[in-house]
Amino acid sequence: MTSRSSAVLDVAQAPFYRAVGDEVEVFRAAAVGGLPLLLKGPTGCGKTRFVETMAAELGRELITVAGHEDMTSADLVGRFLLKGGETVWVDGPLTRAVRAGAIFYLDEVVEARQDTTVVIHPLADHRRELPVDRLGVTLPAAPGFQLVISYNPGYQSVLKNLKESTRQRFVAIELGFPPPEIEREVIAHEAGVDAATARALVRVGSAIRNLDNSPLREVSSTRMLILAGGLVAGGLNLRTAVQSAVVQALSDDADIVAALGELVDAVLPQP
Amino acid sequence: MTSRSSAVLDVAQAPFYRAVGDEVEVFRAAAVGGLPLLLKGPTGCGKTRFVETMAAELGRELITVAGHEDMTSADLVGRFLLKGGETVWVDGPLTRAVRAGAIFYLDEVVEARQDTTVVIHPLADHRRELPVDRLGVTLPAAPGFQLVISYNPGYQSVLKNLKESTRQRFVAIELGFPPPEIEREVIAHEAGVDAATARALVRVGSAIRNLDNSPLREVSSTRMLILAGGLVAGGLNLRTAVQSAVVQALSDDADIVAALGELVDAVLPQP
Amino acid sequence: MTSRSSAVLDVAQAPFYRAVGDEVEVFRAAAVGGLPLLLKGPTGCGKTRFVETMAAELGRELITVAGHEDMTSADLVGRFLLKGGETVWVDGPLTRAVRAGAIFYLDEVVEARQDTTVVIHPLADHRRELPVDRLGVTLPAAPGFQLVISYNPGYQSVLKNLKESTRQRFVAIELGFPPPEIEREVIAHEAGVDAATARALVRVGSAIRNLDNSPLREVSSTRMLILAGGLVAGGLNLRTAVQSAVVQALSDDADIVAALGELVDAVLPQP
Amino acid sequence: MTSRSSAVLDVAQAPFYRAVGDEVEVFRAAAVGGLPLLLKGPTGCGKTRFVETMAAELGRELITVAGHEDMTSADLVGRFLLKGGETVWVDGPLTRAVRAGAIFYLDEVVEARQDTTVVIHPLADHRRELPVDRLGVTLPAAPGFQLVISYNPGYQSVLKNLKESTRQRFVAIELGFPPPEIEREVIAHEAGVDAATARALVRVGSAIRNLDNSPLREVSSTRMLILAGGLVAGGLNLRTAVQSAVVQALSDDADIVAALGELVDAVLPQP
Amino acid sequence: MTSRSSAVLDVAQAPFYRAVGDEVEVFRAAAVGGLPLLLKGPTGCGKTRFVETMAAELGRELITVAGHEDMTSADLVGRFLLKGGETVWVDGPLTRAVRAGAIFYLDEVVEARQDTTVVIHPLADHRRELPVDRLGVTLPAAPGFQLVISYNPGYQSVLKNLKESTRQRFVAIELGFPPPEIEREVIAHEAGVDAATARALVRVGSAIRNLDNSPLREVSSTRMLILAGGLVAGGLNLRTAVQSAVVQALSDDADIVAALGELVDAVLPQP
Amino acid sequence: MTSRSSAVLDVAQAPFYRAVGDEVEVFRAAAVGGLPLLLKGPTGCGKTRFVETMAAELGRELITVAGHEDMTSADLVGRFLLKGGETVWVDGPLTRAVRAGAIFYLDEVVEARQDTTVVIHPLADHRRELPVDRLGVTLPAAPGFQLVISYNPGYQSVLKNLKESTRQRFVAIELGFPPPEIEREVIAHEAGVDAATARALVRVGSAIRNLDNSPLREVSSTRMLILAGGLVAGGLNLRTAVQSAVVQALSDDADIVAALGELVDAVLPQP
Repeated sequence: MTSRSSAVLDVAQAPFYRAVGDEVEVFRAAAVGGLPLLLKGPTGCGKTRFVETMAAELGRELITVAGHEDMTSADLVGRFLLKGGETVWVDGPLTRAVRAGAIFYLDEVVEARQDTTVVIHPLADHRRELPVDRLGVTLPAAPGFQLVISYNPGYQSVLKNLKESTRQRFVAIELGFPPPEIEREVIAHEAGVDAATARALVRVGSAIRNLDNSPLREVSSTRMLILAGGLVAGGLNLRTAVQSAVVQALSDDADIVAALGELVDAVLPQP
Repeated sequence: MTSRSSAVLDVAQAPFYRAVGDEVEVFRAAAVGGLPLLLKGPTGCGKTRFVETMAAELGRELITVAGHEDMTSADLVGRFLLKGGETVWVDGPLTRAVRAGAIFYLDEVVEARQDTTVVIHPLADHRRELPVDRLGVTLPAAPGFQLVISYNPGYQSVLKNLKESTRQRFVAIELGFPPPEIEREVIAHEAGVDAATARALVRVGSAIRNLDNSPLREVSSTRMLILAGGLVAGGLNLRTAVQSAVVQALSDDADIVAALGELVDAVLPQP
Repeated sequence: MTSRSSAVLDVAQAPFYRAVGDEVEVFRAAAVGGLPLLLKGPTGCGKTRFVETMAAELGRELITVAGHEDMTSADLVGRFLLKGGETVWVDGPLTRAVRAGAIFYLDEVVEARQDTTVVIHPLADHRRELPVDRLGVTLPAAPGFQLVISYNPGYQSVLKNLKESTRQRFVAIELGFPPPEIEREVIAHEAGVDAATARALVRVGSAIRNLDNSPLREVSSTRMLILAGGLVAGGLNLRTAVQSAVVQALSDDADIVAALGELVDAVLPQP
Repeated sequence: MTSRSSAVLDVAQAPFYRAVGDEVEVFRAAAVGGLPLLLKGPTGCGKTRFVETMAAELGRELITVAGHEDMTSADLVGRFLLKGGETVWVDGPLTRAVRAGAIFYLDEVVEARQDTTVVIHPLADHRRELPVDRLGVTLPAAPGFQLVISYNPGYQSVLKNLKESTRQRFVAIELGFPPPEIEREVIAHEAGVDAATARALVRVGSAIRNLDNSPLREVSSTRMLILAGGLVAGGLNLRTAVQSAVVQALSDDADIVAALGELVDAVLPQP
Repeated sequence: MTSRSSAVLDVAQAPFYRAVGDEVEVFRAAAVGGLPLLLKGPTGCGKTRFVETMAAELGRELITVAGHEDMTSADLVGRFLLKGGETVWVDGPLTRAVRAGAIFYLDEVVEARQDTTVVIHPLADHRRELPVDRLGVTLPAAPGFQLVISYNPGYQSVLKNLKESTRQRFVAIELGFPPPEIEREVIAHEAGVDAATARALVRVGSAIRNLDNSPLREVSSTRMLILAGGLVAGGLNLRTAVQSAVVQALSDDADIVAALGELVDAVLPQP
Repeated sequence: MTSRSSAVLDVAQAPFYRAVGDEVEVFRAAAVGGLPLLLKGPTGCGKTRFVETMAAELGRELITVAGHEDMTSADLVGRFLLKGGETVWVDGPLTRAVRAGAIFYLDEVVEARQDTTVVIHPLADHRRELPVDRLGVTLPAAPGFQLVISYNPGYQSVLKNLKESTRQRFVAIELGFPPPEIEREVIAHEAGVDAATARALVRVGSAIRNLDNSPLREVSSTRMLILAGGLVAGGLNLRTAVQSAVVQALSDDADIVAALGELVDAVLPQP
C-alpha cells in the first residue's frame, strides 16, 4: 500500500514558515511543561503550517485531525474491530499520540461536538491522562505529548463555540495574516512565482482586506493569494487568475463580483 | 456482471462540449499544479459535461459522486466489510481517486453535510494527502489527482452553504447558460433534432429566462430544452413537447402554467 | 413460497385504464428515448394504474417502490447481507430495474428524503448509469430502462418538495380526475356495480369537488367512489356506503360531516 | 414456552360486544370485497373489542399491532436474523397476515410514522399485494386478508395525522360511547358488578361527559367506568373507586379534581 | 458474581412505610383483579417505598425499571443476543414479570417515549397479554401480574406527558408528603437520628413547603430531610447538614440560598 | 501496555489541596453513610482536585467519568463485546465502582443526557443498588461505594440542567475560587513559580473577577492563573504569559482583549 504514517514530519524537511508575532516563543514555553495550546485565527492564515513548523523544530511527531460534526470520541480514542472472529482494539489518533508523546493537533475544534471534545479534558489539565473507558484503563501521556487545537473566532456562533470548561484549559495564541513583506515572501515561495507577481497579489489582498463596510463574510486570505499565484505559474494571465482564485471564490453575488473586479483592475499593474 | 469501472472515460469518446468563457483555460492552468476547482452555476447548464470533457482532454480517469445529506465520510473514504469472518477494507471513491491520480468530482457539494466535506481539506491545500483514520495511514495523492466540486449558488441558504474554510481552498469558475448560437448547436446535437426545432426551443428558453419579475424558482435550463427536443425526436409535436418538458416541469401552479403556455404559443412558430 | 417477482405485469392482463388527455402520447414519446417522466396529480386519480397500463402496452417489466422518509439509498440500490459468514450483495429494486431494462416507478417521490432521490440523477440525464458505490462499479442502464416518478402537488410544502435539480431532469405530465362519462365507466368496471349506481356516485363526487370555499384538505377521489361502489357490491345500501367511504373518510369534524351528509342526500336518488 | 400465536381468537370464545350503530353492517359489507377499514373514535370506546368481535363472527384470524413512533417497516414486514451463522428471514406480523388471509389490525395508526404506514398502501388498493423489498418478492394477499386501522380524531395534530393518500384508501366507521342502557350492560358484564353499581357508574360517566366548557382533555370513557367497577368488585367502596379510576385518572389539577369530586358526590347514591 | 435477582423482596424484610391516605386500600382492591395502577406524586414522597411495601404484603416479586428517553421497547420486552454464533433471545424485565406473575413497576413513566409505553397497552386492558413481535408470540400474563407506573404531575409538560390512551387504562392514586407526626417517625427511622433532630428537620421542611410565592421549582421533600438527618448521624452539625442537604440542594441562586438560610436559622433550635 | 487502572490514587501521593470552607467536613459526614454528593462551582476552581484529595484521605479508589451528550447508560454500566464468537460482558466504570466500593465521580453531569443520569437513581437512594438490565441482575453497592457528581451552575440552561428528581437525591456542596492567600500558595505549588510571580498572578485574577459590568462569560479561574505561571516557568516573560493564558483565553473580541490588556498592565509590576 502506497502510504505513510499519519503526518510524521522529517526535520530535514522543515516546512516553510515566517513568524509574525511572539507565537514561536509562546509555543516553546508551553512545550517545556506540555501545556495545551489554542490557536485562534482566520481561515488560510497559516495555522496548520505553524504547527508543522513547531513540530519540526521540537523534533516531535505530529498527528493532525480535522474536527467535524460526526466525529465521535471513538474516532479519537479507538474502537474494536472484528478480525478473525475476535474483536481487536485499534488505537485512534489521539491514543497513538498519547502513547508516542506526539503533538496532537485538532484542527477546527468547534466543528466537533462538545461531547467529543470532552475526551481531551483529562489530557488538558494536571492529570495528563486519557481514560480509555472501553479498555478499562487510563493511559498517562508520554513525555513530549502536547495538545494543540485551533479555531476561527469569526465562525463562532451560539450553536458552535468552544465550551468554557474546554477553552479555559488552553494557553491561547492569536494569529493573523502576515504583514506585506512577509506575505510576499510566502507567496513567492509557495506558488513559485516571481517577486513582481507576488507583490501584485499582496496588493490585491491588502486592498480587499481594507475595504470599508465590506459585504464579504471572509477576506482574501494568504491561501487564496497563493492559489492565484499557482494559476499564474500554471500559465494563466494574472487578471484571470485573481478573478478565479480570489474574486469568484469570495462571492456569488454578481454586483459584488463586479465591484471586486473593478477594485482588482485598479490595483493590478496595467498589462 | 454487466458493469464498468466508475465513469472511466475513453478519450476516443470525448463528450460533446462547447466552451462559453475562459473555463477551459482556467481548468488547464489549475490542472498543471493540481489546484482544486469549484464550479458554480445553475442546474442543467452543463457542469457535469464540462468536467467530463476536461477529463477526456487531460487523459485522466474521472470519478464522480453526487453530494447528499446522508453521505458520510466513510462513503467517500471507505469502510470495513465482513468477508469470510474477517473485516476487509474497501476503498471509497475518493480513496480510489487519490491512489489512481484521477479527477474526483463531488457534484452538488452543498448537499453534503459540512462534516463530510472536511475530509477533503488536507487534499485541498499544500498537504495533498488523505488521512484514512480507520487504517491509521495518510495517503499522499498520486500525481494527476485533482479535486473538482460544484454547486448552484441559487440554492445557497443559511442551512446549506459551503463552509468558508472549504471554499477558500478552491479556484472558482462560474458557468452559465450558453449564448443562443451555442445552445442551438448543443440542443440539435444532444436531442437529435433539426436546426429549426433547436432554434424554436432556444427562443422558448430565452423568453422564459428574460421574464421580468418571474415567479419561477428556476428558469428553463439547457437540459430542459434538450428534453423537449428529445420528445420531438420521439414523435411528439413541438408544442406538447415544450408543455411537458418545460412548462409543466417549471411549475405546478395553474395560473403560472397558463401564463407560460401563452408565452410559449407566442414564441413558437405557428404550425 | 407463494409469491411472484415484483409487479411483473402480464400483457395479457393489461389493466383497465381510460386516457383523459395526451398522457399516453407523451409517455410513448418519452419511452422512445428513455426520457425520465414525472407524473403530477391528486391522490386517487389513477397515477399508478396509468403506469401499469403503459408498462403493459410497452411490454416492459414494472418495478414499483413507494417513497417514504426512512427510505435510504441502500433500499433502492442494494446492500450486503450476511450469508454463511460471507457478506453477499443483494440488488435493490432500482438496480434490478437498471439491469433488466424495466420501468422503475418511484411513487410519492417527495416523501423520500432528497438525499435518497440524488441516486437517480445519473440515471436521469445523458449518463443513464447507476453508480453502485459499495460495489465500486457504475452500471449502464439496459435498453428499455425508464424512470417514472410521481407526486401530488397539493402536498408540496417547504419541508417536502422536489429539488429543482431533480425535477429539471424529468418530462412532466399532469393528471386529474376523469370527466364524468369516463369516471362512470371506471367505477362500474372496478367496483362491479351497475350503471345507475356508478352514475349516482359520480354525481356525489362532482358535487363535493365543486363545493365553494371547501374546508376539505382533499376532495372525493375516483378511488373513494370506487370504494363506495365496493360496499354497495358487498350488500350495503348506497347512502351508508357513501357515508362510510366518502363522507367519514373526508372529515372528522362533526359539522362538516353533517353538511356533507346533507349534500349527499340532496344528490343521491331518493330510495 | 407458555404462549399462544398472536391473538388467534376462538369463535367459541367470541368476545362480548354490543353494537351501537351500523358498524357491524359496514364491516360485513367491506369484508365481502376485502375493502380496508378505518375505525375512528375516542379512547376506551371499544374499538379493539369491536374488531375482535367481527373477526370471531367472520371466522378469521386476527393479528393486532399497536402503532408507535419507533415502529419501522421491518417491524411490520419482517427482518433477517442471524441463526447458526446464516441470516434467516422472519416474517413480521403484517406478512404473516398477508400469507394467512387474516385480519390485520393496526391500532393507533397515527402514532406510527407516515413512512411506516406507506408499506400498507399496495395492500389497500386494487393491487392487494405486499412488496417485500428485502426478499425481492411481492406477495399477493391471501383470500380473507383485510386491513383495519384505527385512530382517535381527538388526538389529531399537525405533527400526527393520517396522510391523505393513506386515509383515502379506507372505508371509515365512526364509533362513540354506547348509550346508557348498553353501557350499563357492558359494565356489569366486564367488571362483574351488580346492576345498581353499573347504573351508578353510567350516571357518573354521563354527568362528566355532559359538563359544559369542560377543562378536561378527555372524558370518562367506558373503559374507565369498567375499571371503577373492577375496584368495587375488588372490595373498595363505590366513591373511592370512582375517585381513583375516574377522577384522579382524568386530571392532576387540584381544583378540577375537587370539582369533579363534588359532581361525583351529587350523582352517586347516598351511602 | 455478587448479585441478586432484580429486586425480589423478602417479606421478612418488609420495608418501612407509613400510610397517609387510602392508598393501601386502593392498591389491595386493584390487586384482586390485577387492575393497573398509576401513582402520582412529587419527587421524594415515597412512591418507590410504597410499591416495595405493597409487593412485600402481597407476597409478589417486584421488578422495577426507571423510565428514560432512550428506553426502547426492546429494553422492556427483550432482545436477541449473539451467543456461540447463534442469536439467543433474552427476556426483558417486562417479559420476565409477565411470565412470573410479578408486579412490574415502571417509575417515572413520562420520561420514557410514548412509543415505548405503547407496549404495555395490551397488558393494561382486558387482554392482559404481551405481544412479543420478534418471537411471533403473544404471552398471557401469569396470575398475579400487575402493572404499576408513576410520575410527578409537577413535571408534566407539553413535550413530556402521559398519553391519554395510556393514562385511561390505569387506576390512579395520588400521594403527597406525609403529615408531620408521620414524617418525624419516617426521618428518625430512616436517618437513624433522635426524635429532637427529626422534629427540627420536619419544622424546616414545613417552613419551606409553606413559603408564599416560593421561587423554588421543588419543595423540601421527605427524602431531603432524611439526607440531612443522615449527615447529622455522620457527625455534622444540624445547621450545616440542613444547609448542604436542603438549602444548597434546592437552589443555585445566591439570594435564594441566603433567604432560605435565614429561614432555616429562624426555625432551627438555637445551638 | 503502558497504562494503569482508572485513576487509583496512592495515599502516599495525596494531591495538593487547600480547603476553603466546610467542604471537607461535609464530605466526611456524607462518607460515613455513603450519602451521594453534588459539587457545585465554576470551571477551574478545583472540584476534581477536591475529590481526588478526599478519595486519598478516605483510602478509596476513585473512578472518574466526564459527562457528555453522547454518553449512554451502556457507557456507564457496561456492554457485551464479541470475543471468539461469543458475546462477553464488560463492566462499565460505574459497575466497576459499585463492585469495588469505590468513589464514582461523574464530572459535568449536566452534559450527560437526563436519561443517562437515571441509571444512578437506585444508587442514590435507600436502595443503593445498580440494576444491570442486560444481565438481568441487580448489584448491591459494596461498602464504601459513594456517588459524587459535579456541575457549574453558571452553565445551567433550559436545555441542560439537572432533573429535580436526580438533584434531590444529593447532598450539595458549593465551591468557589480560594481567597488570595490560599490561591497564591496553590499557584506557586502547581506552576512551580516563586512567591512574587504567584502574588502578581493572583492580583491579575482578582482584578478581572472584580470588574464591574464584565462582558466576560467566565472569569479568570485559578486554573488559568496556574497556566500563566506554567508559561513563566517555561521561560516566557510574565506579561506575555498572562496575555496568552488569561487574556486571549478569556475573549476573542479585539476591544475586550485590549481593555483586559490595559488592566493587566496596570496590575502587573513594572518590569
